[in-house]
Amino acid sequence: MRFTIDREQFLKSLNAVGHAIAPKIAIAMLANYRIALTEKGLEILGSNNEISIRSIVPYMIGGREIIRAGIPGAILINAHKLSEIVRRMEGQELNLDVIDNSIAKIDGGNSNFRLPCADAEEYPDIRLEPEGEGVTIKTADFALMVAQTAFAASTKEQRPVLTAVNLEFDGNHLTATATDSARLARKILNIEADTKFRVNVPARVLIDVVKLFEGNESLELFVSKEKILFRFGGIVVSSRLIPGDYPQTKSIIPQTFNYILDVNARELIAAIDRVSVLSSDKESVVRLSMTEDHVELNVRSDVNGSAVEVLQTFQFTGERLDVSFNSTFVFDAAKAIGSEDVSLCFLAEMKPFVVKNKQDDSIIELITPMRTY
Amino acid sequence: MRFTIDREQFLKSLNAVGHAIAPKIAIAMLANYRIALTEKGLEILGSNNEISIRSIVPYMIGGREIIRAGIPGAILINAHKLSEIVRRMEGQELNLDVIDNSIAKIDGGNSNFRLPCADAEEYPDIRLEPEGEGVTIKTADFALMVAQTAFAASTKEQRPVLTAVNLEFDGNHLTATATDSARLARKILNIEADTKFRVNVPARVLIDVVKLFEGNESLELFVSKEKILFRFGGIVVSSRLIPGDYPQTKSIIPQTFNYILDVNARELIAAIDRVSVLSSDKESVVRLSMTEDHVELNVRSDVNGSAVEVLQTFQFTGERLDVSFNSTFVFDAAKAIGSEDVSLCFLAEMKPFVVKNKQDDSIIELITPMRTY
Repeated sequence: MRFTIDREQFLKSLNAVGHAIAPKIAIAMLANYRIALTEKGLEILGSNNEISIRSIVPYMIGGREIIRAGIPGAILINAHKLSEIVRRMEGQELNLDVIDNSIAKIDGGNSNFRLPCADAEEYPDIRLEPEGEGVTIKTADFALMVAQTAFAASTKEQRPVLTAVNLEFDGNHLTATATDSARLARKILNIEADTKFRVNVPARVLIDVVKLFEGNESLELFVSKEKILFRFGGIVVSSRLIPGDYPQTKSIIPQTFNYILDVNARELIAAIDRVSVLSSDKESVVRLSMTEDHVELNVRSDVNGSAVEVLQTFQFTGERLDVSFNSTFVFDAAKAIGSEDVSLCFLAEMKPFVVKNKQDDSIIELITPMRTY
Repeated sequence: MRFTIDREQFLKSLNAVGHAIAPKIAIAMLANYRIALTEKGLEILGSNNEISIRSIVPYMIGGREIIRAGIPGAILINAHKLSEIVRRMEGQELNLDVIDNSIAKIDGGNSNFRLPCADAEEYPDIRLEPEGEGVTIKTADFALMVAQTAFAASTKEQRPVLTAVNLEFDGNHLTATATDSARLARKILNIEADTKFRVNVPARVLIDVVKLFEGNESLELFVSKEKILFRFGGIVVSSRLIPGDYPQTKSIIPQTFNYILDVNARELIAAIDRVSVLSSDKESVVRLSMTEDHVELNVRSDVNGSAVEVLQTFQFTGERLDVSFNSTFVFDAAKAIGSEDVSLCFLAEMKPFVVKNKQDDSIIELITPMRTY
């Protein structure tokens, strides 16, 4: 294998695939990229136990030659070192030339590197060809969906299924649900496609995939029995699914409410941010006291002191109500809603309550209150 | 004690003094600021085992009232919580009102905080009044001096004196020297004052002090038996000194050389940065091969591969010479010199060599080469 390649395009693909290289490598082979020059272009493949990413640098982009003087082939080469070398090299192009299938010579600018490389056959067999019908989604919509839900997934491994975002597609709606069992976030997108699925995708994979969308308008989702594939631009990301039944959560979201507080999201977020200075490291309990004339947040701690925040912009419907909650949950939810106005909708002091935007029913956040004494 | 204060000025002083609050507090009292309203203004004092910082918010700045409605007094209050509250509060002013010497009420915007506080008498007795003659230095000169030397101090605690920068003043020159015993950096400033000293100041203190200079043209240095005081603007920083004899290093810097390599600093730094990708985690040995016609850097590793960088801009005087060194040392030294051109001056392959700028003899860096086989 040999080729001359545009350094910036090469680096862009290396950086994308780098998201699949684990900081600590369990399987030695997976410290490598598999790079192969084929008729499609330069295929760069990286993988860890959770995800695999393949990015293809094409021969031409918009009439400009990106790869030239190529001789096909495939090798394995240390991912970190290759990326760092290509990042730091100078000059617009570089040459990569494999000698005896064991040394990669990389030349460009005034630099000459020789990196050991290994036989491409030693790499695990990773299949990234889509099966079945795909679902096409705008990347902006998908990124927003992830931002509005993934934070609510559990970060604890006791119940692995809760570290996932559940993606359910019924042919007309893609519903993303995340819950750590104390709070829940749900987002629904209207999309049509001739397929159905209900799968658990690791939340951190979704957060990572979104970072790779740059410059691509839409992505395709393919779901098979054991994995989910994301395809956009020249990139394919494959993720394992988390096995197990995701909790049925549709019926737990209340539809009618006895108390509704409409507030300015920015004011609420800033007030929570301030009072949580007094909370202890583990959990930050805030009490929200609401009447028609007065709404305040307060925190009281024997050790740390107390704080009261009086909200200025609000409308409250209902009798006097006091509710305590983990301030992080309401902070996250109000941010995720992403609008200037948010509504907090309650049934009773100790019932789960809803954070939503009246103008947008595609997104809903549910929070379990806390008991305080 | 009570006062109404401009929030931004208060925060600025809290942030400065915050540099003296240790992330892990060994002595419970030192988790607090001592804040006192006196005839000078609001004095904020923080301390850890190494340094103490006092910042004074004055009553007036440029004709504008900063503190008003004050009643003198002094208390201790949790440093982290006070800073975070003042940072997040809204409104231009805030009120602080101490009740029964045990609760501080902090009000401003729509926020009302109550923080526990303690008697100011419980704070350690920290003296920040200068003794003897001071040395006045431009902050820009002192900051450059620290940037050009402190990095060469040792970060290992085996020989505590080497974790210091040695500051020597003879009435006409302030000389800063730092060495970890494998490399040395020295900077000399021409300053006149009627005093003499030779003290070891912790390198990390100097790095921290420089961060506080913002907006001040000059600082004064006061040295006494056990501490050094830095005074600038409304701020006084006091640091412990490191006891012990600092090595005598003047005679070890060679004055005549057999080989001189003049190079472009940026090119040298970029080349070292690239080849060091191949170095192992612990130490990165680079070999520099010089003749009149050709200068190259190279790295060779059985495991990681090899790299050659050919320098384009150079002038070499002397016979052929090959020298190996820790690439980090030359990288740091070339950066510290701070000029477009640097000279590497050698006596022999295995003798310490000098990195300097021919136009500026106030700064010199000395590096011990390494043996390679």
